[in-house]
Amino acid sequence: MTPLTRYLPILTWGKTYQRDTFVSDAVAAVIVTIMLIPQSLAYALLAGLPPEMGLYASILPLVAYAVFGTSRALAVGPVAVVSLMTAAAIGNLGLTSAAEIALAAGTLAFISGALLTVMGVLRLGFLANFLSHPVIAGFITASGLLIATSQLKHILGIEAHGHTLPQILGALAAHLGDVSLATLVIGVAATGFLFWVRKGLKPLLLRLGFGARAADIIAKAGPVAAVAVSTLAVWALGLQDAGVKIVGAVPQGIPPLTLPSFSPALWNDLFLSALLISVIGFVESVSVAQTLAAKKRQRIDPDQELIGLGTSNIAAAVSGGYPVTGGFARSVVNFDAGAATPAAGAFTAVGILLAALLLTPLLYFLPNATLAATIIVAVLSLVDLSILKRTWGYSKVDFAAVAATILLTLGFGVEIGVSAGVLISIALHLYATSRPHVAEVGLVPATQHFRNIHRHKVETLPHAVTLRVDESLYFANARFLEDYVSARVVCDEPLSDVVLMFSAVNEVDLSALESLEALNHKLKDMGIRLHLSEVKGPVMDRLERSHFLQELTGEVYLSQYDAWVALKR
Amino acid sequence: MTPLTRYLPILTWGKTYQRDTFVSDAVAAVIVTIMLIPQSLAYALLAGLPPEMGLYASILPLVAYAVFGTSRALAVGPVAVVSLMTAAAIGNLGLTSAAEIALAAGTLAFISGALLTVMGVLRLGFLANFLSHPVIAGFITASGLLIATSQLKHILGIEAHGHTLPQILGALAAHLGDVSLATLVIGVAATGFLFWVRKGLKPLLLRLGFGARAADIIAKAGPVAAVAVSTLAVWALGLQDAGVKIVGAVPQGIPPLTLPSFSPALWNDLFLSALLISVIGFVESVSVAQTLAAKKRQRIDPDQELIGLGTSNIAAAVSGGYPVTGGFARSVVNFDAGAATPAAGAFTAVGILLAALLLTPLLYFLPNATLAATIIVAVLSLVDLSILKRTWGYSKVDFAAVAATILLTLGFGVEIGVSAGVLISIALHLYATSRPHVAEVGLVPATQHFRNIHRHKVETLPHAVTLRVDESLYFANARFLEDYVSARVVCDEPLSDVVLMFSAVNEVDLSALESLEALNHKLKDMGIRLHLSEVKGPVMDRLERSHFLQELTGEVYLSQYDAWVALKR
Repeated sequence: MTPLTRYLPILTWGKTYQRDTFVSDAVAAVIVTIMLIPQSLAYALLAGLPPEMGLYASILPLVAYAVFGTSRALAVGPVAVVSLMTAAAIGNLGLTSAAEIALAAGTLAFISGALLTVMGVLRLGFLANFLSHPVIAGFITASGLLIATSQLKHILGIEAHGHTLPQILGALAAHLGDVSLATLVIGVAATGFLFWVRKGLKPLLLRLGFGARAADIIAKAGPVAAVAVSTLAVWALGLQDAGVKIVGAVPQGIPPLTLPSFSPALWNDLFLSALLISVIGFVESVSVAQTLAAKKRQRIDPDQELIGLGTSNIAAAVSGGYPVTGGFARSVVNFDAGAATPAAGAFTAVGILLAALLLTPLLYFLPNATLAATIIVAVLSLVDLSILKRTWGYSKVDFAAVAATILLTLGFGVEIGVSAGVLISIALHLYATSRPHVAEVGLVPATQHFRNIHRHKVETLPHAVTLRVDESLYFANARFLEDYVSARVVCDEPLSDVVLMFSAVNEVDLSALESLEALNHKLKDMGIRLHLSEVKGPVMDRLERSHFLQELTGEVYLSQYDAWVALKR
Repeated sequence: MTPLTRYLPILTWGKTYQRDTFVSDAVAAVIVTIMLIPQSLAYALLAGLPPEMGLYASILPLVAYAVFGTSRALAVGPVAVVSLMTAAAIGNLGLTSAAEIALAAGTLAFISGALLTVMGVLRLGFLANFLSHPVIAGFITASGLLIATSQLKHILGIEAHGHTLPQILGALAAHLGDVSLATLVIGVAATGFLFWVRKGLKPLLLRLGFGARAADIIAKAGPVAAVAVSTLAVWALGLQDAGVKIVGAVPQGIPPLTLPSFSPALWNDLFLSALLISVIGFVESVSVAQTLAAKKRQRIDPDQELIGLGTSNIAAAVSGGYPVTGGFARSVVNFDAGAATPAAGAFTAVGILLAALLLTPLLYFLPNATLAATIIVAVLSLVDLSILKRTWGYSKVDFAAVAATILLTLGFGVEIGVSAGVLISIALHLYATSRPHVAEVGLVPATQHFRNIHRHKVETLPHAVTLRVDESLYFANARFLEDYVSARVVCDEPLSDVVLMFSAVNEVDLSALESLEALNHKLKDMGIRLHLSEVKGPVMDRLERSHFLQELTGEVYLSQYDAWVALKR
């Protein structure tokens, strides 16, 4: 692979692009466009931005991804969680002017895009692995709950701002007297309709004799129908005068050329938020992309994905958009609809461009309540509290990480929630490795295999004890092993030999080496020899570079069985 | 052990306190007092505090440690590195009034003492293990260099402030024209004399026929002699009028009763500094205490040490002192002089109290240059750049941690240096575990032992590959293994079986479990069975709580040899 084809995947798939592929891609693009028009408006509302920014974020970024991305099914654009994080990041700034808010959103997309691109070029995609599955699952669930709750204000037609669950619920409670009945009717009806579309429409259509594919496409158009009907209702009944908040004037035309701010103060304020948005967006996107690629035995390149998403966000920044990433639901729809190459995304961009050119005047009377209903129905599918049950059953450490992530996200907002989740899971992992499991082992009869004396029937030697250390030895547990062995030998008088079985020791760092030297010394004073067994190649290479092996009072045995045979004599 | 004797070690050793022990302790106390008088004044100067605070920090804190501490040789009091950190912490506040600075120093001691005590009660002593040996060695060396450089201004008799090496060197260069010749003569003479005392005096005394012990005590009194001679010289020659800076009036009397500030703003500003001082002070102190205890086959209790040092710092806060900890050189002297119980520290406190009551008027003409010489000679013994060579030879990861700690401490000050050192060593460890070593293994002939096919002559099976994963499987490397195995099997057509040898896998968290499930699925699609071998008890317990074992296409073998025998058929 030349650098050019590595950084421009379009050169690879573009070379063999054919009419068949074009048709598949175009059909998928039509379906995704129908889904994306109301979503892009709704997510812009969620992000606290004017609706046209949602449309703009769905045009140029998709073209950029088509050029630089490696997933053949990923549908890039505004998504719920990143929109919520954008709202939180910009909310922190305390801006009031609409122009400043739009500039901040574009700048956020630019910083985020630059970070992603740099991480891609430096091949730092592996960093995303530090966001564990439980943490991301907990975070997405909590974000879904936060988003759904935050949209209730639009359904009720009241004012209620906040970035945490207590804030939002408090604000809702405080303004409950101001409920707009007309808005509530529209909101509840739209929500009910959309839930029914999601659960009941497709089976109904199938029973009515529609083909599976047609039923699918019609069901996907549900939000568009809700938008159309509620807009017509507002217009016909003049409900905007009855307190129903509407989208209002949306500029008509191609996306504007915008430039991000390069104010150091603004960059400083947005940097951490941009980093979190980048990482969360990348992890969400790459996991969808990998899942979908695996279904067709394709592979995606996580480092190139960083570049694809990075350039998409830079594209959003220069064309009036805000941070984007690959959306879960939309990508699945794109995949199911037959998208075969990233070109499907570019075709979707054309569809949204047409909408921006032609449809915006029709959106004037669109009620915010309908958009809120679209969001609520979309995000509730993200909420999955079963992760709590799964982790509780499997591992209390994972459970603690999930529970903390959910509670902190709900209680203190998305940025604190996800940062704390990552730090907590790393801290719990380090804590566990700092107090490793040590098993005293003996020979399983009639084999050369050694297992824990407390779990298996094994043979032991009276004058020798073998301890299997179940962890790499590094600074965090260096002293632990020294103390453990000292405590073990003190209570056992006739001991002459201690064997440390190193089958699970993958690293011995300098701190641990010094601790082993001290242990060797201490045991020597007590007249006990220290042996090692099953030391792995890479560990042995390193020990040979120190003086430890010369000072070691005992031997290093290739296998634990060799040690057993030698010590039995 | 009752809670009372656990928290009050004095009850244990005090019960059997005898005349012999008293004599040993008293002799050690006299020697340590002689050493501590000039040191306590000098370290207060280093911390940017009035000299009497050094004396006060050497009285009540020593009594508190005698009651609560577990080390029989640790000499608590002001030490160089903690004094430097105190200077940095208080320098950050930008205070100018002497009273405010003294209050901040006392408050720093109080917060630090409270943190240490709480950590002790919660048994969090293990946290200190996260400060690896290379990081602490690098930090102490860099601090020693910073301290020595920072004292050059007193030797030269010029003004030069700064908390980083570039700042200090820049300030020295800028004021080089203001050098005071008289000060320089005193400073250079004192430094030269003290170096000679350290290196040449004892051998000379021995040659002159003094006993080893007497020679030792006389050599320890070197700094006192330097203080006495230089003070007399200034007084006799009136050098204070020739530009020699002197200590001036030091209050005479017992330590004052002081209260720390409880201003939330000040606590907020000092909290992180206090945490760093606590941890560094604890680590330095506990490692000396452990080394000395091991020489006499005694044990110290790290969690009780936290309480001992914590109460010492609280004692410093309420008696006009500043943060203290166990000093390395002083503790070794205390030990060598025969200190048998913590009572030696209490006797030292009496010695310093007498000095505060009687000697302070004599210190009026003591030149700062002499104190600076005392500091320089003391801290240069901390500087040990050989850690760079040791780590370079042993492990590049450890080397990177040391080098970064040294450079960041010199370039950005003590607080950033040590924080970055800890974070870097944790990050490097996590990075290494996120890309684990995976060895393809085969049977060592005529044994039941399996080793790397690239390092040993081993037998393999044509249709089965065994991969030994040399790391616990957790979120950071979950996807790595999946990708590794996929890549390995793709290039090998006739494979029907993959065995993952789990001898080094000490943990499988939920992220890794999901990755294993995905791998099992993927291999199943390719017609390859996945087996596990040598799964440890704790890991197996957990896997049994999931559905993975039911879905696994292959078997779980007790030993790798069992797997070999089964697959050979």
